[in-house]
Amino acid sequence: MTLDGQAFLEHFRSMSEIGATAGGGVDRQAATVADGQNRHWFRGVVESHGFEVRYDEVGNQFALLELAPGAPWVAVGSHLDSQPTAGRFDGAYGVLAGAHAAARLAGLEGAKYNIAVINWFNEEGSRFKPSMMGSSVFTGKLAAEAVLETTDPDGVSVREALEGIGTIGDFALEVAAYVEIHVEQGRSLEDSGAQIGLVESTWGAHKYEFTVKGEQAHTGSTMIADRRDAMLGAALLISSARDVADRFTDESGTVVTSCGELYVYPNSPVVVASEVRMLVDIRATGAERLEAAVAAFEERIREAADRARVEIERGAEHSWTAQEYDGRGVELARAAAESLGLSSRVVRTVAGHDSTNMKDVVPTIMLFVPSVEGISHNERELTRDEDMTAGVDLLTEVLRRVVRGEYAYAE
Amino acid sequence: MTLDGQAFLEHFRSMSEIGATAGGGVDRQAATVADGQNRHWFRGVVESHGFEVRYDEVGNQFALLELAPGAPWVAVGSHLDSQPTAGRFDGAYGVLAGAHAAARLAGLEGAKYNIAVINWFNEEGSRFKPSMMGSSVFTGKLAAEAVLETTDPDGVSVREALEGIGTIGDFALEVAAYVEIHVEQGRSLEDSGAQIGLVESTWGAHKYEFTVKGEQAHTGSTMIADRRDAMLGAALLISSARDVADRFTDESGTVVTSCGELYVYPNSPVVVASEVRMLVDIRATGAERLEAAVAAFEERIREAADRARVEIERGAEHSWTAQEYDGRGVELARAAAESLGLSSRVVRTVAGHDSTNMKDVVPTIMLFVPSVEGISHNERELTRDEDMTAGVDLLTEVLRRVVRGEYAYAE
Repeated sequence: MTLDGQAFLEHFRSMSEIGATAGGGVDRQAATVADGQNRHWFRGVVESHGFEVRYDEVGNQFALLELAPGAPWVAVGSHLDSQPTAGRFDGAYGVLAGAHAAARLAGLEGAKYNIAVINWFNEEGSRFKPSMMGSSVFTGKLAAEAVLETTDPDGVSVREALEGIGTIGDFALEVAAYVEIHVEQGRSLEDSGAQIGLVESTWGAHKYEFTVKGEQAHTGSTMIADRRDAMLGAALLISSARDVADRFTDESGTVVTSCGELYVYPNSPVVVASEVRMLVDIRATGAERLEAAVAAFEERIREAADRARVEIERGAEHSWTAQEYDGRGVELARAAAESLGLSSRVVRTVAGHDSTNMKDVVPTIMLFVPSVEGISHNERELTRDEDMTAGVDLLTEVLRRVVRGEYAYAE
Repeated sequence: MTLDGQAFLEHFRSMSEIGATAGGGVDRQAATVADGQNRHWFRGVVESHGFEVRYDEVGNQFALLELAPGAPWVAVGSHLDSQPTAGRFDGAYGVLAGAHAAARLAGLEGAKYNIAVINWFNEEGSRFKPSMMGSSVFTGKLAAEAVLETTDPDGVSVREALEGIGTIGDFALEVAAYVEIHVEQGRSLEDSGAQIGLVESTWGAHKYEFTVKGEQAHTGSTMIADRRDAMLGAALLISSARDVADRFTDESGTVVTSCGELYVYPNSPVVVASEVRMLVDIRATGAERLEAAVAAFEERIREAADRARVEIERGAEHSWTAQEYDGRGVELARAAAESLGLSSRVVRTVAGHDSTNMKDVVPTIMLFVPSVEGISHNERELTRDEDMTAGVDLLTEVLRRVVRGEYAYAE
């Protein structure tokens, strides 16, 4: 079997049938039946190309290809899990691209590293929270035991779910470097016409968990002045967050704010809500801009609490400033793209990726391929065939250079 | 057994143990196990006082007391079902008060009517929608077959649920008049110091069902200008509704607006919501005020759709102007209260009641007793013992007059 672009696209189309939705996307949330099917399909693919497959204690899937017996390992990967009603590309593209790139290097002369293709468990965080769970355990940011006891909304734990799909083990591996390729989930590549994005940094972000506490009351007979309406408090937080994004976005930088998840209690048509639990996040292109946006939002939180006569309790809060990827990795990838005749540009990632974790512990290279119209977390997500195969070609070339020791400055 | 106020309070306390919540309220949603237990407890109570119990095709429970064999029937009642985490009084007070009032009239000389105490099925509408289901079927406003096929969020139908608790039958009854007593769920009686409310009319109301349609997108990487955020659209509708209430409330009248129920899809922390389903209602003290408030809100709906770049689809919409209760019933009840030395005042009801349905088909009298601080649909709902027993005394006197033919102008 020739591992050319056509072979990649055929594999990708076959994989996209697993957990396929009527709208042309996939639903393969972490450790569901569909995720389990996909993990087993992937295992079959790589085993047929001479990889060995292992699982670690939190279900990270390692496809191991030995090029230099006894040598250290470099890793390439992403995640096969998806949001509900997601696109086919997000994460899954990168894992399959990693496998094809590695397989193309089988038997490589002069290899100084072996290659592990990693399918990180639960990058999406829709079923089990938080997101980037598998790579967070791998990089020591989360404890495996706590992760395994985390439950989904039905009370099923990560441990039970992983055992249910048979993809948990006790494998452990040290890696010396990490490479990931992903669809951009934005439109900067498409807008600029570049074929490849070289990720130089993340955005800064501030994430809130709110519990808005009001008091149950009759939606008809309770006068407005007597109400403590948690739903109103939540609504004011959501619209305030958007106001902040608009206010702090200008020609020199961008703020985006979101609330995607919200639970109302008792959620009855005739009862003023007593409690709303919700998540809000603020992301910005620079540290000062993020700080200013957060400060403005804090003021709006107080105003929302006053207007709706509610308590707004704040739970776990996370803040991080824009973080840089390794500049030498960006340069290696730029040169590799150039050698293949692919146009590239330096970009930033707003979304989190497993590489966001990995870059904190080992030299890491993060690559993007274009997303049509930047549509993401949507069944209509699309990366064109030629962009997918160009990405696999580049990933192969980058991985070849890494395996040959050109990125081994850490030694 | 003497059916005095003390006996009533003991029965009421006993009933309040069924479906009791830790917060001092009850959770007896329609046709749940707790509602079934309460219906059977109530059956036991009234059968021990000589009533016969029957169920109609949609689970309305009839406790029949014959005073004048062969004569027509008058009805008294309310509903035993509750909201989740509700107070103990709403509905349940009126049903038990009706049973005690009727039982006190057992053996009444000169009765021209028999008495049916009715526990209407699913007044609350929290589990099965719409609310006031049982009385809507009884008054011909809803078809029994459609109601029986209505399902709760778990897919259980009304028919299955009623059969599950064994409270469905084929009984049918015509009634000549209807009396209901209920806790006020507002504070006008408490504020004025009156012991009894004589309900002269409902408020006008306009109820909306909205489906806000946006598009799934990544909460981080999708730029604000590219978003079509259903959650933002919903939030703007909620805050706009409150603005309308504030704007149209003044010394001459009141508007209240609410959104108590909202469902988000896909409700993931990292996905811009593609769909929010929600209910909004606007209630006002007068027809012109309602019309002005609705017109102002319609403008805000368009603004919300523009700002969030969403489609706002409108489902079933219901509007009704303030409707009057029968003035002769108000006068009969006022005179009855006076004869007992109870202070009364004429009030309006913002909340819907089964009597709101019944008044459209038979002469109907609606009475209120005070609610402490007007707290309703809340475990902290409270009506004082002396107010409860005064209400039972008045209901007994009103029912005595009705049964003796003093309210029989319809003949």
